[in-house]
Amino acid sequence: MKRIIEQKFAVPYTYPVIFSENIFNVGDQTLADLLDNGKGGKAFFVIDSGVSDSHPELISQVKAYATAHQEKFKLCAEPLIVPGGEASKNDPQYYEKVVEATHLYGIDRHSYIVAIGGGAVLDMVGFAAAVSHRGIRLVRIPTTVLSQNDSAVGVKNGINFFGKKNYLGTFAPPFAVLNDFNFLKTLDDRDWRSGISEAIKVALIKDLDFFEWIEKNATALASREMEPMQELIVKCAQMHLDHIAGKDPFEMGSSRPLDFGHWAAHKMEHLSKYEIRHGEAVAMGIALDSTYSFLKGMLTEGELNRIISMISELGFNLYHEVLSGEMLLKGLEEFREHLGGELTIMLLSKLGKGQEVHEMDQSLVLEAVEKLKVFQSDRLIAN
Amino acid sequence: MKRIIEQKFAVPYTYPVIFSENIFNVGDQTLADLLDNGKGGKAFFVIDSGVSDSHPELISQVKAYATAHQEKFKLCAEPLIVPGGEASKNDPQYYEKVVEATHLYGIDRHSYIVAIGGGAVLDMVGFAAAVSHRGIRLVRIPTTVLSQNDSAVGVKNGINFFGKKNYLGTFAPPFAVLNDFNFLKTLDDRDWRSGISEAIKVALIKDLDFFEWIEKNATALASREMEPMQELIVKCAQMHLDHIAGKDPFEMGSSRPLDFGHWAAHKMEHLSKYEIRHGEAVAMGIALDSTYSFLKGMLTEGELNRIISMISELGFNLYHEVLSGEMLLKGLEEFREHLGGELTIMLLSKLGKGQEVHEMDQSLVLEAVEKLKVFQSDRLIAN
Repeated sequence: MKRIIEQKFAVPYTYPVIFSENIFNVGDQTLADLLDNGKGGKAFFVIDSGVSDSHPELISQVKAYATAHQEKFKLCAEPLIVPGGEASKNDPQYYEKVVEATHLYGIDRHSYIVAIGGGAVLDMVGFAAAVSHRGIRLVRIPTTVLSQNDSAVGVKNGINFFGKKNYLGTFAPPFAVLNDFNFLKTLDDRDWRSGISEAIKVALIKDLDFFEWIEKNATALASREMEPMQELIVKCAQMHLDHIAGKDPFEMGSSRPLDFGHWAAHKMEHLSKYEIRHGEAVAMGIALDSTYSFLKGMLTEGELNRIISMISELGFNLYHEVLSGEMLLKGLEEFREHLGGELTIMLLSKLGKGQEVHEMDQSLVLEAVEKLKVFQSDRLIAN
Repeated sequence: MKRIIEQKFAVPYTYPVIFSENIFNVGDQTLADLLDNGKGGKAFFVIDSGVSDSHPELISQVKAYATAHQEKFKLCAEPLIVPGGEASKNDPQYYEKVVEATHLYGIDRHSYIVAIGGGAVLDMVGFAAAVSHRGIRLVRIPTTVLSQNDSAVGVKNGINFFGKKNYLGTFAPPFAVLNDFNFLKTLDDRDWRSGISEAIKVALIKDLDFFEWIEKNATALASREMEPMQELIVKCAQMHLDHIAGKDPFEMGSSRPLDFGHWAAHKMEHLSKYEIRHGEAVAMGIALDSTYSFLKGMLTEGELNRIISMISELGFNLYHEVLSGEMLLKGLEEFREHLGGELTIMLLSKLGKGQEVHEMDQSLVLEAVEKLKVFQSDRLIAN
């Protein structure tokens, strides 16, 4: 006897992505309402040391906020401070600390973990929350441009392992995302700038108007004007969210359009031991794949120049010595492996329009690197 | 400015649950077809030592099968043998070994991990597969009654941690489930019997006809007749699958109807250091909650007696010394915590109909335990 039952179902997800300011003012109800599960929700806060260093008042603010809203939620322990940046994902002890906290403080599936920080810390905490009790509610409070407009609004988490980025992780939508623009004010210039590269990325593959808007606002963005930055973040987050909701939220297929510029970026970050920040690497990765698209005859020289000028005007470098030929080509192979055998790389067929290819011409990749070197020296001369 | 974007999407899942025999005969295409991803799928096998001990020919059969179907899939390494039973979930080294294998052998999101074994091994391997690269395709080949009719057809995985069952885990539907009835022939009597308790469970809370079918076939099942056992497994798996697809597959709410009889079972397993097997504990847990339902006035004495007789006739014990009052009540508290603050326990309002309650009368729980003690001594006298 052979019998087959076809199992079929869909799992619905919904979560709010909120853009706001001063969320820890005791008069602001937003966070307290999120943490109110109707029976006095337990909340555990994990804070990026970069954020608590720049905002020394934050921990006492969090405590005062919890006291003021104790009928809605309770802190179940002192906030846990973890290192910011990739350090939090490279050393598994931080992931383990968060998991252990869920055990020590009885944080269950109807309690909340609130993570405040940059994308790396949110990724790490998100992984710990996702696997403890098969998923504790996670409220993400992203504090950088990059996390507010990109990583924190999405459905992924993870830590690095075996020296490979995000080797361990899950797809797990957050319970809510709460962006506070105030955190952006204390970012250093590199982090302010870094997040813009994800906006350039979605604009280039999906939306010419948005690309031209960034072009027009590049100087204002580079000089840290808050209003265009807020507009950029909301627009970029919306595009990211639409993309996820559009199809294949958990990336079961092999198409990965949002990885435009990312195959080289991942490798560069790793080779530089994370001295190059993600957004900086993505900017160079975009420059590389755009240049490759030009060399391949897919983009005109005028289009390429607009991209290179914009990236340059925003203050990004276009080349770094880790972009050496051999290691870079190894990155291409690793990306192929990561995708599961078939290489899929997003390139550009024009501004605002991505096009996937399934092979890359190695000698053209190396030629593109050489061109970036030239762009970079022109850039240095121009400044 | 405050803006809110409501993100909303659904993630569709589909997987086949296949019931068959002799799946490693080289002439059988079923498994090879599952592992054929169109570009020569890579497959990594993890095998329960209990299964490979009872089937010493299995490893060479797997290799011969892979050789015969090499145009469809390839073994990327020697099969990994891991201990059977809770040992595989209690010691994290086995989980870590599977994760490490994905790294060592380049097993990616379009490759396959094939796990052959009882529910515990499938849970452990499933967790490793779910978090490596954010999810590698998992083909489950369950080999026990319990895993074929219950755990392996579902969407959960996990390992034990901090001395708590399934503390770490995810919801992750398998790529496919392939049941081979042949594996049942070599089960010891305890494992043959164990899986029947999950069928009694779903019958009692959902389906009087199925309960009466089990009643009628209890003697045949106890004497290891294969035909009714196959029928029981397919029916129970179907009910389990329907329940998952019905609503809330990933258990985001707090209703847990399929946990009927399980709160006490989890505690008993742990207290006995897993000397009591899951299905045996569930049988006693069902007896306990049924007796409690009777004491609470929800079931008649006649209904209770039918349940107790059936469990007894199938060869299960009704009482074990770990069912001491104090520890058991602690189990109730842990279950409440596990559910997230509010206790939800499934009881019976009649045969074939569950009813959830949100509190348990502690003195009645202790009284129910005393009654089980009496049922057990009657049972021993009767045999």
